[in-house]
Amino acid sequence: MPNPPPAWVQALTPAEPQGTQLLAQERAQSNIDVDKLGELLHTKEALDKQNSILSVLKSEKVFDKSRNHTLGRTEKIQLALARGKRLQQLKKVHGWSDEDAYVANELLAEPTPYGLHASMFLVTLREQGSPEQQKLFYERAAKYEIIGCYAQTELGHGSNVRGLETTATWDPEDKTFIIHSPTLTASKWWIGSLGRTANHAVVMAQLFIAGKNYGPHPFVVQIRDLETHQPLENIYVGDIGPKFGYNTMDNGFLLFNKVKIPHINMLARFAQVDKATNKYLRPASPSLVYGTMTWVRSNIVLQAGGVLARGVTIAIRYCAVRRQFQDRDAKASAEENQVLNYKMVQIRLLPLLAAMYALHFTGRGMMRLYQENQDRMKAASQADQEKRGAGPEQLRAGSDLLADLHATSCGLKALASTTAGEGLEVCRRACGGHGYSNYSGIGPWYSDYLPTLTWEGDNFMLTQQVARYLLKSARAVLAGKGTSNDTSRILQAYLSRRDKGASFDILGDDSDIVAAFAWRTAHLTFETLKYRDVEKRSWNSLLVNFWRLSTALSQYIVVKNFYEAVTSPELTSTLDPDTASLLRSLFRLYALHTLEREASEFFSSAAVTVRQIGLTQASEVMKLLDEIRPHAVRLVDAWKIPDWQMDSSLGRYDGNVYPDLFRRASQENPVNDLVFDPYPWNDNVLKNTPPKSKL
Amino acid sequence: MPNPPPAWVQALTPAEPQGTQLLAQERAQSNIDVDKLGELLHTKEALDKQNSILSVLKSEKVFDKSRNHTLGRTEKIQLALARGKRLQQLKKVHGWSDEDAYVANELLAEPTPYGLHASMFLVTLREQGSPEQQKLFYERAAKYEIIGCYAQTELGHGSNVRGLETTATWDPEDKTFIIHSPTLTASKWWIGSLGRTANHAVVMAQLFIAGKNYGPHPFVVQIRDLETHQPLENIYVGDIGPKFGYNTMDNGFLLFNKVKIPHINMLARFAQVDKATNKYLRPASPSLVYGTMTWVRSNIVLQAGGVLARGVTIAIRYCAVRRQFQDRDAKASAEENQVLNYKMVQIRLLPLLAAMYALHFTGRGMMRLYQENQDRMKAASQADQEKRGAGPEQLRAGSDLLADLHATSCGLKALASTTAGEGLEVCRRACGGHGYSNYSGIGPWYSDYLPTLTWEGDNFMLTQQVARYLLKSARAVLAGKGTSNDTSRILQAYLSRRDKGASFDILGDDSDIVAAFAWRTAHLTFETLKYRDVEKRSWNSLLVNFWRLSTALSQYIVVKNFYEAVTSPELTSTLDPDTASLLRSLFRLYALHTLEREASEFFSSAAVTVRQIGLTQASEVMKLLDEIRPHAVRLVDAWKIPDWQMDSSLGRYDGNVYPDLFRRASQENPVNDLVFDPYPWNDNVLKNTPPKSKL
Repeated sequence: MPNPPPAWVQALTPAEPQGTQLLAQERAQSNIDVDKLGELLHTKEALDKQNSILSVLKSEKVFDKSRNHTLGRTEKIQLALARGKRLQQLKKVHGWSDEDAYVANELLAEPTPYGLHASMFLVTLREQGSPEQQKLFYERAAKYEIIGCYAQTELGHGSNVRGLETTATWDPEDKTFIIHSPTLTASKWWIGSLGRTANHAVVMAQLFIAGKNYGPHPFVVQIRDLETHQPLENIYVGDIGPKFGYNTMDNGFLLFNKVKIPHINMLARFAQVDKATNKYLRPASPSLVYGTMTWVRSNIVLQAGGVLARGVTIAIRYCAVRRQFQDRDAKASAEENQVLNYKMVQIRLLPLLAAMYALHFTGRGMMRLYQENQDRMKAASQADQEKRGAGPEQLRAGSDLLADLHATSCGLKALASTTAGEGLEVCRRACGGHGYSNYSGIGPWYSDYLPTLTWEGDNFMLTQQVARYLLKSARAVLAGKGTSNDTSRILQAYLSRRDKGASFDILGDDSDIVAAFAWRTAHLTFETLKYRDVEKRSWNSLLVNFWRLSTALSQYIVVKNFYEAVTSPELTSTLDPDTASLLRSLFRLYALHTLEREASEFFSSAAVTVRQIGLTQASEVMKLLDEIRPHAVRLVDAWKIPDWQMDSSLGRYDGNVYPDLFRRASQENPVNDLVFDPYPWNDNVLKNTPPKSKL
Repeated sequence: MPNPPPAWVQALTPAEPQGTQLLAQERAQSNIDVDKLGELLHTKEALDKQNSILSVLKSEKVFDKSRNHTLGRTEKIQLALARGKRLQQLKKVHGWSDEDAYVANELLAEPTPYGLHASMFLVTLREQGSPEQQKLFYERAAKYEIIGCYAQTELGHGSNVRGLETTATWDPEDKTFIIHSPTLTASKWWIGSLGRTANHAVVMAQLFIAGKNYGPHPFVVQIRDLETHQPLENIYVGDIGPKFGYNTMDNGFLLFNKVKIPHINMLARFAQVDKATNKYLRPASPSLVYGTMTWVRSNIVLQAGGVLARGVTIAIRYCAVRRQFQDRDAKASAEENQVLNYKMVQIRLLPLLAAMYALHFTGRGMMRLYQENQDRMKAASQADQEKRGAGPEQLRAGSDLLADLHATSCGLKALASTTAGEGLEVCRRACGGHGYSNYSGIGPWYSDYLPTLTWEGDNFMLTQQVARYLLKSARAVLAGKGTSNDTSRILQAYLSRRDKGASFDILGDDSDIVAAFAWRTAHLTFETLKYRDVEKRSWNSLLVNFWRLSTALSQYIVVKNFYEAVTSPELTSTLDPDTASLLRSLFRLYALHTLEREASEFFSSAAVTVRQIGLTQASEVMKLLDEIRPHAVRLVDAWKIPDWQMDSSLGRYDGNVYPDLFRRASQENPVNDLVFDPYPWNDNVLKNTPPKSKL
């Protein structure tokens, strides 16, 4: 910088009290055992692993985050590739597992151009390739000898996979497939790692055999030369340009002009073309894919808690350090008040604090349920084959549960990612003006997260699947054919009390809160079923109802999972009674605050009375804010998010907010190298020439 | 680009039907007179002016927007300064007025480093400077001989102006002020145009005379040399670093080490230090400033409509071009459906379409009311001085109205900017995956707009002022001392019917919708007054109620202004009956959709019945969506936002979405100049060396 801080500047400190003191006070006023709670959330093993990986990353200059915010896109993506390379090298050097590498990437907290190679490309080859194909493609890809991506969406088609335009036409003469883009809108688009990095792609294309369309299937296509990295003939490929975030990733486009690929390049685990007869061979059961998607979505729910936790950690720590205005009822001589003491700030942040716990426990609950069921089904399937025990019956129950998990994971993915995405923006605004600085650490994180609301099923589209499932379940229950899963259970419970009405003691009994959420969901389900089946309303006219229905079911599931977690022996026996009771308060805050926001549906379904809502709003939620406030800083500390990962001046563990903001602005900001010529009549922008910026 | 589109790529077109055809169909199915409606909104004169300025800007290479998205911050801000300079030069060449220059800046649609010089610096000098100071500072500033900024907020203080730490100590010996930063948190922070551009600043500092603090006052301080542009001695100044948006502006920091300035540099219109006696001279009435703030906030309301209109225009046009899935109830052979036909998309976009009209008419209504009142008060003041007519009485009524306008403008600023900011994000998501591309034109616009939710009064902080005013008005009304303004009127109306209850025919009579919004506001006001005055609850515990109160009042005012606009003779006599009736439907959609979202307050205040809400939700809002849908494209066309201003592939007037996205990605995207070395074991990131990027 041309103008380094002179001595008189270096001697300045923030006005008293210092942020360090304020955070120390915060931590002193709460007795939460942060380490124990952290281990309950993440396990000790995972936290130790995180620490050891962190120390490796911090010692490498290429991971220095100070340059992230000022680079242009061209420089940014090169730096990201350099980081991706270094992560692979470190993985080898330190013998990290794939999971460890994932942790390292999370700590780095930005996508690298290898992102889609390491996830979708490898997963697809492994899960959809035959043994021969695994050897040919997967093994080389796992060693990064070939680099790939997963090319599904197109310029003209995202959500509607059946509408894809790229074709793969079987040529019975030379036993090849011809991959072709018949239109401009057939161009593959948004494909991560494709733009500049990949030399192979798994391409989803409509399979045509003898003029008949068999629908979208996956094909492995080489797109660039392995030596020169230039596109192969009749392939046009590139990066799709700048985005709201995710600019360290080379999302790409891809067009084919009748490109021939051999028979072996169609991934054959679920379907294939018989080389001899030129016939399509029926796909194997796609239930494995079905299961994988459930797993992916449950994982998004779990991650959503952690994503939100970063924003909440930053906002709560900074709002404990920032002081603004005296309390209006206090004496004139009073000191300025910590922003976190204002109820208008608490009502924005503390329910999000509760939500991050709620989503975490829900994601964990979903994944456990899924795993248990997979294990049970495996055992049942074995029993079935060995003709012993209750094999078939258990298999049926297992597949019922899987169907339930699949549908509920769609709705939860939508609710969780919307909660996290929108919650981050609430956190940013709660930081006032400084929230807008990139040194807050929230903005760029928010921008990078937003695609999650659209991919793996657009959050609005997904709600139709949930509603369809609920309507189907309701029809079954009405026909006396309900299954034993939870969705059927709550629908049956509602029907059995329909004539008596509900009387939930939401302010007296926590399990009644869960029941009220179930009641509202069941009420909306039968109401919507009436619209569809009796009044014969069009599907389109009901889309808004479906979205409400999906939200209601998902909120019920989160409330139920959170309740089960805070009352579980695992939790109550691990934590001291004060901490366990505080987590119960977080549950109540999440549930009652949600209930209050959705009050009109709780009214109109007669799940609660107007008086109950009035009391919830005017006193119960306020009481919970008072109860949780003193523990807010420790409750975010327990998530153990390292400063290095957050890259935030506002959210620093030590509270040294202002010196850090000042240091970064004055010493890590290349704009301060520029000396402007400020007069409009001089065409020159600069007085001097700035030093060349370097990567 | 190393890989220009080969002939086979250039020959490709999007799948049928083309976007151009789809938008042509949209326009053919509506009879709205777009030109007439556009003139009603903006006046013909303004639209002509916009066109003539636009053609000047488009012909200048420096304004080419294609580079905006890929530059790093250092390059971006230099380009912005070059553009700011060129705008000033063009202003001179073409004899543009200040207002014309403002229009040019709006078309450019990015802040330039002159932004705060041209607004707050000049305004403050003009309005708060004595005639001598105007000559000394304002005249030179208006000619850009000196460049300035307005330095109020500090690292440690934003909202709470009284808490500022910078001091200005009067030295009676040499008749100077000593400007000083006693702490690090006293550093000026966020000051637009300060970081690299300004050589002067209006500095808000605590005025100390003989040890006594007289509160914050404005001082003109030179901070950089007029020749070398280097900071003067004992001044430390720079840019505060990268932000979520607004990166073409050099928001800055500024520290003083006992810097002496002469007596003339304290802006003296409202307060001064007497040079002879060293005494503080009482400020003149600050009502002028009070009025300016009201004007500024009303302007934010008006602008919010236009800000939102950009997002809505883009989303509605693109959702008419994008087709995805068949309608579920349609035949299997049906074509894919325009996304805009789905109710789940309509319910997100059409209420925002209504909101942009609502905010526009409200802003205009507020500004007209303000102007009329200013004129009346001026006349009354003259009459008063000349001792004739009802001067004093009219003055009192005028100042009542001004107080009302001031308070309501606070709430409206919060509601309007939140609606626009959050609405833009809704529009972005409604565009699906492509909304995330910067070529959508929404993301960067959203990022640049977000500070409006925080500056000119944080949107949450402001609501306290509104509530304070409402409580005061309610006390006056209860004491029989209500005034004649609208707030008193709705409170009185509520009291007079309190014992009989409300019976608003919201689905039958549009004026009853307005009355229901007034009723709910009055109900919440008296309820909150009871909490505060009877139950003596703490101010802090009521902040959430205050926020609700402010929102309720502001929604009422928007609904009222929108209703008055669509029923005004000006509108009904200018537009054909079909268009006028459609605007009435937009009013109903805005009002009923808002009512539905806030249903629980309308219930609990007994403004409407549960049955009415049920009907609103299930049928009335759906009917309005059907009614407005065919006119959606023409209703955004009428806003006449030029393509060049929006810089959006998705929102193009001609509907050529896909070819434009493809062209920009493949031909305006310097990332495609890079040839990666994709293997992690090679440290080199690139195969070749990219061409040096140029400004």
